[in-house]
Amino acid sequence: MAYRNLARTRQPSLGPTAPRKRFDPIDTSPIEEKIKKSSSLPDHPLTNHSENHHLYLYENKVKGRFEKIVPLLKKVSSLQHYEDFVERAQKLSRSELGFDLPLHILEKAWVGNVDMKALFAWCVFYSHQESSDEFFNSDPLNGSSDSSSAKSFQSFLAECGFHLLDITPCADGRLAHAISYALRIPFSSVRRRSHAGALFDIEKTVGRWIKTEHTRYRESFPNSSSDPTRYLKAVIYHFSSVDPNHQGCAAHGSNDELAAAKGLERLLGFREAVENTFCCGASVDLLLIGIDTDTDAIRVHPPSIDNNVDLKSWICARSIYKETQYLTDQEALRKIEDTISSVSPGKMDSNMVSFISKLITNNLSQIDYVKKFHSGQYKDAGHAERFIGVGIGFKEVHLRNLTYFAHLDTVEQGAPDLDVGVKIFTGLNISKNLPIPIVVRFDYSGSVPHARERALADCKRVDEAIKARYSELYDQGSLHTFLTIRDRDKKSPAEVVGSSLDPALKESH
Amino acid sequence: MAYRNLARTRQPSLGPTAPRKRFDPIDTSPIEEKIKKSSSLPDHPLTNHSENHHLYLYENKVKGRFEKIVPLLKKVSSLQHYEDFVERAQKLSRSELGFDLPLHILEKAWVGNVDMKALFAWCVFYSHQESSDEFFNSDPLNGSSDSSSAKSFQSFLAECGFHLLDITPCADGRLAHAISYALRIPFSSVRRRSHAGALFDIEKTVGRWIKTEHTRYRESFPNSSSDPTRYLKAVIYHFSSVDPNHQGCAAHGSNDELAAAKGLERLLGFREAVENTFCCGASVDLLLIGIDTDTDAIRVHPPSIDNNVDLKSWICARSIYKETQYLTDQEALRKIEDTISSVSPGKMDSNMVSFISKLITNNLSQIDYVKKFHSGQYKDAGHAERFIGVGIGFKEVHLRNLTYFAHLDTVEQGAPDLDVGVKIFTGLNISKNLPIPIVVRFDYSGSVPHARERALADCKRVDEAIKARYSELYDQGSLHTFLTIRDRDKKSPAEVVGSSLDPALKESH
Repeated sequence: MAYRNLARTRQPSLGPTAPRKRFDPIDTSPIEEKIKKSSSLPDHPLTNHSENHHLYLYENKVKGRFEKIVPLLKKVSSLQHYEDFVERAQKLSRSELGFDLPLHILEKAWVGNVDMKALFAWCVFYSHQESSDEFFNSDPLNGSSDSSSAKSFQSFLAECGFHLLDITPCADGRLAHAISYALRIPFSSVRRRSHAGALFDIEKTVGRWIKTEHTRYRESFPNSSSDPTRYLKAVIYHFSSVDPNHQGCAAHGSNDELAAAKGLERLLGFREAVENTFCCGASVDLLLIGIDTDTDAIRVHPPSIDNNVDLKSWICARSIYKETQYLTDQEALRKIEDTISSVSPGKMDSNMVSFISKLITNNLSQIDYVKKFHSGQYKDAGHAERFIGVGIGFKEVHLRNLTYFAHLDTVEQGAPDLDVGVKIFTGLNISKNLPIPIVVRFDYSGSVPHARERALADCKRVDEAIKARYSELYDQGSLHTFLTIRDRDKKSPAEVVGSSLDPALKESH
Repeated sequence: MAYRNLARTRQPSLGPTAPRKRFDPIDTSPIEEKIKKSSSLPDHPLTNHSENHHLYLYENKVKGRFEKIVPLLKKVSSLQHYEDFVERAQKLSRSELGFDLPLHILEKAWVGNVDMKALFAWCVFYSHQESSDEFFNSDPLNGSSDSSSAKSFQSFLAECGFHLLDITPCADGRLAHAISYALRIPFSSVRRRSHAGALFDIEKTVGRWIKTEHTRYRESFPNSSSDPTRYLKAVIYHFSSVDPNHQGCAAHGSNDELAAAKGLERLLGFREAVENTFCCGASVDLLLIGIDTDTDAIRVHPPSIDNNVDLKSWICARSIYKETQYLTDQEALRKIEDTISSVSPGKMDSNMVSFISKLITNNLSQIDYVKKFHSGQYKDAGHAERFIGVGIGFKEVHLRNLTYFAHLDTVEQGAPDLDVGVKIFTGLNISKNLPIPIVVRFDYSGSVPHARERALADCKRVDEAIKARYSELYDQGSLHTFLTIRDRDKKSPAEVVGSSLDPALKESH
């Protein structure tokens, strides 16, 4: 939806460009050694050292699953003409990946060549599913609503006078970890809706705002509507400090100023829509945030109490890091708060100062994280996503460059975003003769009658539309889909409801 | 959306069938004579005689515009090889239709044959636009929110304890007049959302319910949320008394019982969704209505106070007409109320009795309308729509068999409905070498920033999707589109924003 205006202008530069080069994003040195080595480097006084280690272990574990796929499949490929190929392949896969490969694909090997593209897609889907299940079953990021970190953050939000935090990062895979890593916000404490160029849908966001406010009125959740708290809508645009003209937000032609200006325009449009839809003081608070995708350092544009935001004034976490790294905790915090107030275009609300100060402080940990575990800046400056996520949901995706996200209800509306994803994966995968793995997800509300059936139907409709739009890739086995639905009213994992790799589906061709 | 489950079952009988036969729906005898003749026939004591005349004049005026097109174009066709063809054609069109034909089409006549299909589509679009403009400019049905009839109906609704009336008729063109004619409800007093098989979208309806309730809370409009009033959601299914097995609701295989059962199932699903989405007594009232598309007589299934609805128990307006036609007003009204209470599966709320009594009473006028002006039953028992309406809006369409309506956001979701429309028009128009005229409409809220641009983009997106889906018809000039948008926050007419008949567009091929 949000992307459609861009699409119509037919400027090719307005979609993220395909990557120029791919780097291996995971360092190959043993993790323990890396953690040990990193411990000897000094942290910023406000950095959460143990959290950084925990997050690094999680990143390695999940991405590690994907990294093992190609080496394993190369070995499997070399075995395919042995008579006991199936047994050998399964044994190898079990020992290296921890799971069996699909028998119906292996068993066809004797006829000609085993379909390595299908095996690759299958392994990507299985690895995603393992991580997804783990996320919902064991809360590895300690961010579920039951976690102490979420409870503590919710209290902090309430103290700052916000009853809901709604953030739209750009859909670019390099921002997929923005909430849990860059901003260190428990995922359950924020409503995240990724959109290309951070251009969220105003009408739909007004709808969500109305539902939030009505729940406060009707159920006093999260607080009573008579409490003078606010709905905070934030946008995260992005830029690249290493290669600003090519690796910034391609939806805005790698132009930082334009990315910030368009993000602010959308925020202001949302506020105006809320104010014009209802009278009686209905309004929202707005926050514009930028992120450097090379270092994860954020910049925040502090709004004045009378709602002015200056596109040219921000507090930069990277500068603050340098200015405060030799101070005490308290001195550093004071410096952060002073800087926030000083760059705002007017007098600020003290709650907003506290909130931004929290984001900056949290981001200092992430700056140290990138310093220690990614040599100060990511090796994969460009795209290096593992799969495309299409649909509504993906609450479990919180790792950089794991997923290119096309948030859509229909391929008809979301085609520009999806085309960009396919273009990116043409560079990443097709160029290596690997297929494009697409995970389709539709979250639904289990408390609404037949919502599960409708989510299932949505999955199948979007699957058909993807296959029709990219029929050549699909017919060549160069694009595979994996269909999942999830009841957002529950905490259980997503349910797999189909795949282009299903034996029955393949036979029906 | 609502139709998608039907589509997936791939049962061809689940879409409206193409018409078997087309009758001329407008009587050819002069209108005045017909009105005079009709005055001599006795009316039911509760019939609104003058309103019937007024509605008949409107029906004749609007449909008359469409009826004149083919005879005029036949004459134009016979002139096309005269040297002064353009002047002659324009003179004729001005005198018979009241407007000029498009010059860029006429001017090509000398090269070969004039594109009569394009002229036909153009005349249909122009005639629709004339009626549409008139509707918004002069309120010919006296149903706008400023009208005394709307104010009076709103007061009546409030007395019955309802703060909003939301009705979903089937999208079939034979129900397009259900609100203004069959039920005699001022169009501004009801939220109308037509869907094939009356299967409205539960999630979207919950969204509209939330907005309604929140507006009551925030603005006390239409009344305060503390007032113990209800949101009434009704469904109108349909059947045919003349040809029950073929001319009923094709979305339900012309099976009345199934149409009623599916309508009730959707209503109950909606209530459950509201109740499960919010606690604290959130709920809605429900009403199931059936209509005989041959006579316009309705049947209403009166719900008991504890929300029971019996699919086999209803009050039939046609029977009531016969049973009460020789009674006094008061006796007839009492009989209606008694019948309502007696067929309900349990004790009824007296407000619901009053409301249903009003619908039945209003429908008696319509039964007389069909008796007098359409010989007791419509000659066009099947489909005889003039154009397909696609998108969101069409507040101005209130005539039987004027529009086949495909209510959709995207062709991807609405394709099953649209395919049915194209099938119907293949029978109605293509079989006569005439093109299918499709009017695309997207209503928007002018108070939301850039909503107009988004509605415009939606129009163009849907236009492209229609042309892609029916590319063969489009390439042959057998399908034309006409794009319109409208600010629903204003009372002004729709704005025309493009057409497949535009000279510039045609030249770009």
